[in-house]
Amino acid sequence: MPLRFAEPVAETYVPPLTIGHLLDGVLVKAADQRIVYRDQASYSYREFVGRIGRLASLLRAAGAEQGMTVAVMDWDSHRYLEAYFAVPMMGAVLQTVNVRLPAPQIAYTLQHAKAEILLVHRDFFPIVDAILPIVPDVKAVIAIMDGTVGNMPSWASGEYEALSAAASADYPFEDFDENAVATTFYTSGTTGNPKGVCFTHRQLVLHTLASAAPAGASLAAPGLGVDDVYMPLTPMFHVHAWGLPYVATMLGVKQVYPGRYEPAMICQLRSEHQVTYSHCVPTVLEMVIQAAKQSGADMTGWKMTIGGSALTKALCAEGRRLGMDVAAGYGMSETGPIISKAARRDPGELEEDAIVSTLTATGISAPLVSVRIVDEDLKDVPQDGVARGELVLRAPWLTACYTGNVSASDMLWRGGWLHTQDIATIDPSGQIRIRDRLKDVIKTGGEWIDSIHLEELVATAEGIAEASVIAVPDPKWGERPLAVVVAMPGVTPTLDMINGPVERAIASGAITRYAKLDRFYIVDQLPRTSVGKIDKKELRARFAEPNEAVA
Amino acid sequence: MPLRFAEPVAETYVPPLTIGHLLDGVLVKAADQRIVYRDQASYSYREFVGRIGRLASLLRAAGAEQGMTVAVMDWDSHRYLEAYFAVPMMGAVLQTVNVRLPAPQIAYTLQHAKAEILLVHRDFFPIVDAILPIVPDVKAVIAIMDGTVGNMPSWASGEYEALSAAASADYPFEDFDENAVATTFYTSGTTGNPKGVCFTHRQLVLHTLASAAPAGASLAAPGLGVDDVYMPLTPMFHVHAWGLPYVATMLGVKQVYPGRYEPAMICQLRSEHQVTYSHCVPTVLEMVIQAAKQSGADMTGWKMTIGGSALTKALCAEGRRLGMDVAAGYGMSETGPIISKAARRDPGELEEDAIVSTLTATGISAPLVSVRIVDEDLKDVPQDGVARGELVLRAPWLTACYTGNVSASDMLWRGGWLHTQDIATIDPSGQIRIRDRLKDVIKTGGEWIDSIHLEELVATAEGIAEASVIAVPDPKWGERPLAVVVAMPGVTPTLDMINGPVERAIASGAITRYAKLDRFYIVDQLPRTSVGKIDKKELRARFAEPNEAVA
Repeated sequence: MPLRFAEPVAETYVPPLTIGHLLDGVLVKAADQRIVYRDQASYSYREFVGRIGRLASLLRAAGAEQGMTVAVMDWDSHRYLEAYFAVPMMGAVLQTVNVRLPAPQIAYTLQHAKAEILLVHRDFFPIVDAILPIVPDVKAVIAIMDGTVGNMPSWASGEYEALSAAASADYPFEDFDENAVATTFYTSGTTGNPKGVCFTHRQLVLHTLASAAPAGASLAAPGLGVDDVYMPLTPMFHVHAWGLPYVATMLGVKQVYPGRYEPAMICQLRSEHQVTYSHCVPTVLEMVIQAAKQSGADMTGWKMTIGGSALTKALCAEGRRLGMDVAAGYGMSETGPIISKAARRDPGELEEDAIVSTLTATGISAPLVSVRIVDEDLKDVPQDGVARGELVLRAPWLTACYTGNVSASDMLWRGGWLHTQDIATIDPSGQIRIRDRLKDVIKTGGEWIDSIHLEELVATAEGIAEASVIAVPDPKWGERPLAVVVAMPGVTPTLDMINGPVERAIASGAITRYAKLDRFYIVDQLPRTSVGKIDKKELRARFAEPNEAVA
Repeated sequence: MPLRFAEPVAETYVPPLTIGHLLDGVLVKAADQRIVYRDQASYSYREFVGRIGRLASLLRAAGAEQGMTVAVMDWDSHRYLEAYFAVPMMGAVLQTVNVRLPAPQIAYTLQHAKAEILLVHRDFFPIVDAILPIVPDVKAVIAIMDGTVGNMPSWASGEYEALSAAASADYPFEDFDENAVATTFYTSGTTGNPKGVCFTHRQLVLHTLASAAPAGASLAAPGLGVDDVYMPLTPMFHVHAWGLPYVATMLGVKQVYPGRYEPAMICQLRSEHQVTYSHCVPTVLEMVIQAAKQSGADMTGWKMTIGGSALTKALCAEGRRLGMDVAAGYGMSETGPIISKAARRDPGELEEDAIVSTLTATGISAPLVSVRIVDEDLKDVPQDGVARGELVLRAPWLTACYTGNVSASDMLWRGGWLHTQDIATIDPSGQIRIRDRLKDVIKTGGEWIDSIHLEELVATAEGIAEASVIAVPDPKWGERPLAVVVAMPGVTPTLDMINGPVERAIASGAITRYAKLDRFYIVDQLPRTSVGKIDKKELRARFAEPNEAVA
C-alpha cells in the first residue's frame, strides 16, 4: 500500500521551517523584553522586530533580493542579530565574514560567496579599503559607524542607523521553501583556501530547537532557560555564535551584546544586566576570570558553555571556585555547530573531581544526533571509554557540502557519515571525549596511539620541559611515534629517560606497548601557530622523514 | 533571483523528520537506561529497541504494511510505547483507540480509520467480542494477556509476548517521506460522531522538539530533563499522552508505565522508582493526592503538568503543600497537543498566592507557536489581560484536517488560523488564560460576557447553592444571560438577590454592565454530564427559549 497522507483544506496553514518563524509568538510573550548593546543601546523585542523590517527595507533599496549574498563584518552586536534574521527572511544568504582572517582571504571568501552587499563596522574600513578593488561583485557597502560621528568612507552608500531610521518597518516578508540556503561562512583550514559551508532555513530551525532541548540534566547542566539573561562571548561570525542568538530570540530572553570583546566592558555588562548565560572559547573564559579577579567582580551563577578547544580541568575548576557553572560543548563549523553538551547526570552525588571530569568531557549527544566512533573502514569500535575511533555523525542540520568543492564534500560525507576528523572515545553512559585530531593520531602495529596522551606522558619525563609527538611513516609498522622535546636547562635527555613514564603507563595498561618511543629530537623551542598551538604541520615538515632522528 | 540551494554530494545523508529518528543517538547515551511496567517488567532501552523491531516483524507477519492502520486498545504500558514507535516506523498508521468511548463509537472509529490490525489488552476483550462483527476490515487481532495465563479468545491470532519472543528484532526499517501520516485518533465531540485527527511524522518530531524546549523558566517550571524519571498519568490513547513518551524516549530518561490507573500502584511506582515527572488531568491529581494523604507517601519533588481541564488554585496549592511542583499546560486533540505551559518567570520573588496564580494560568506559548485572541471577524483584541477573544493558533504541528470531513476542517481552519473555540485573555507578559468555551460565552450589546465568571458571581449570591449561566437569543441584544440556580433550603431567591454580587462587580469594573441579569430559573438540581460537568447543552435545550424565564 502507499503511505497515507492528510488532506489539508484550502485554509490549512502549514508554516515552513524558516528563520522568520522563529519569531512566532515572540511578540506575544516577550514584546517588552530587552535587547542591549554595550552601554550604547537598549530596545524592546517590539522595536527589534521593527528594526528587522527596516533592515530588510534598506537592503532592498540597496539592491538586495532573494538568492543574493549579503555579507556582514561586525563585532557581536544588536545589528548583527538583526542581520541574522532580516537577510535570511528576505530569502537572501547571510555571509558571516571571519574578520580575523588576513585581508586577501577575506576577499577570497567574499568572491567565492558572490557577496554583493556588505554591512561593515568602522573597525574594518581599512580591510574594505584594501580589498574593494578585487571584489567587483560588491555593489553596495553599508557603513556601521557605531555611534561615532566621523566621516564615512567615499565608497559607503549610507550609514546603517540613518538608513534604518528612514526605512519602513513593514517589509512584506513571505514564506518560501525551507530548504533555501540561509547562511554561509568559511572554515579557516590549515591548508589551502578557506572552505565554504552553508546552512538552510530548515537546518537552522531544527538546530535551534535541538539546542534548546535539555542535553544535560535539568538542574545540573548550563542550559538556556527563559529566565536567563544571555550574552554571547563567541564571535557571531563563527558558526552562528554556536546558534545561541537564535535560541535566545526564540525563547524571548533578555539579550546583551558586548561588541568588541573588552574585559572591562564584559564585566560591566555582566554585572549591570545580571547576565546568567554565556558561551566562549577557553581563552576568553581565562580573560574573563582574570578580569574578575582583578576587579573583584561577582561571577556567581554565570553559566558558561565552553567550546572551540578543550576545556581543561584546571580552568573548569577555577571557574567553579568563582561560582560559575562551566561546562564543555562540542561542535564544528560543518555541524551548525551543536553536537553534544557536557552534563551531570547525577546532580549532587559526585565528588568535585568527578564533576569537573564530567563537565570537561565533550558530553552527551543532542537530540536527533547519531554519533559513532569508527575505524578507517567505518566499522564501529567498542563504546567502552577506551577504544578510540574517528567520530562520525548524522543529524538533520549538518552541512550538505563544501560550497563548490565536490572532492572535499565527498571526503566529508564518505560512507554517508559526516567525518569530524576528531578521534574520540565514548563510555558506556554515552559520554563522548575527544582525544586527538585524526591527522595527529599515530597508527602503529594495528593500534591507534593518542598523540596528546603520549606527549602528556613524555612531558612528565625527567629532564623534559616540553614535548610534542608526531607520526612518522614506517615500512614495518605503518607509522611510529616520534617525540620532539625541549630539555630542561643543563639536562641532556636520553631515550630511557623519555620512555620512563611511557613504560609505566604501558605496564598499567593505560597505553599500548606500541607507544614506546624508539626515536626523538631535542629542539630549543617548539614551533607554534599564530594562536599559540604547537604547529604539528611544521613539526611534520621538519622531522617526519624516517631514519633521521636521534635513536 | 531564484532562492539559493545547497548541492549535496552523492553520500550526503539527510535524515527525514520521522519517528524512527527520535531514537537516533539514544542507544549511545541511554542503552542501559530502564523502562518499567508496573511490577511486571523492567528492561533496558537496548531491549526496548529490539522489541520495537520484534513488534514490527510480528505485525508484518500478521499482514501489516505501509499505509495500513494498526489500532491499539491498552492501558499505559511499555507495549503501547513499543507501538508508538514500531507502527509509524513501518510506514503504517497508529490508531490510539479511546477505550472509554461506548462500544458502538469505538466500532465507528475503527471503521472510519480503516483499522485492519488490532492490539488489544484483555480488559477490552468484551468490547472486541461485541464489535468484531461490524468491523469487517479487521483481519488480525493480537491479544495482550498482560502476564495472565487465561485462554485467548478464539478470534485472537496470537499473543503479544509469545509472538514478540518468536519474532526477529532486526526489522528492515527504512527512511520515507516525513509527511506521511504517523498517528490518528478521534475527538469525543459533544455532538455527532467522534471526529478523526491525524498527525504526520514531521509534525510529531517537531512537536517532540518543541515540547522538550524550556517553555517556562529554567528553574521554576516543571520541564522534563534527562535526570528525571518519567511516568505518564494521561492515557496514551489521548493525544499521544500529550507527546511526553516521545520526549522521554528522545532524551533517554528512565520511564515507568503504570498500566491501568490504580492509586496504590501509582504511589508504589512513584516511591520505588523515585518518579520525578508526570502529567495528568486534575481528577487524577486529586486521586493521587488523596492516596498519598492516606498512605503518608512522600510527594516531594514530583513535577506534575496538569491539563485537560482547568487546574484550580486550591488543587495547585494543595499539591504544592505536599512538596509537588504542579503547573498547568494547555493544548487540545487538534494541536498535538502542546501549545503552552505555565511558567514562573521570576523564581523566588513572588508571594505564594501570586505563584499559584501563575502556575494555574494556561501559560506561555511554546516555541514556534503563534497565538492570537480575536473577535468574530478574526481581528485582534487587546493583549491586556482583560479583553477576551477566541484563541486561534498556528504551529508546524497542528492537524491539517478532520479526516474525511471537509466542512468541519474548513471551520477549524477558517481564515488560515486553527480555531480552538476557547475564549482567552492574554496579559502583557504573554500569560494566556482560558476563560470560557466559545459556545458558552454570552455575546450581548457588542460585549462578550464570560459565563464562568458570571456564574461564579451568581453562586456567591444570598440564598444560592449552585448556579449556571447560559446565553439565550434576544432580538434586541443578540444574546442575554440567563441564570439557572439551585436555591439553598428554605430560601426563594429573587432577581435582586441574584444580581447583588453582579452589581458589585459591575460597580468595580470587573464585569460589563450588560452582565446584569434580567431573568433566571430555579431548579432542584443542575443537569450534569457523565464526567460530572454541568451539562450546558441540556440547560440550553431546556431553558434557552426566550420569554419563558422568571422575570
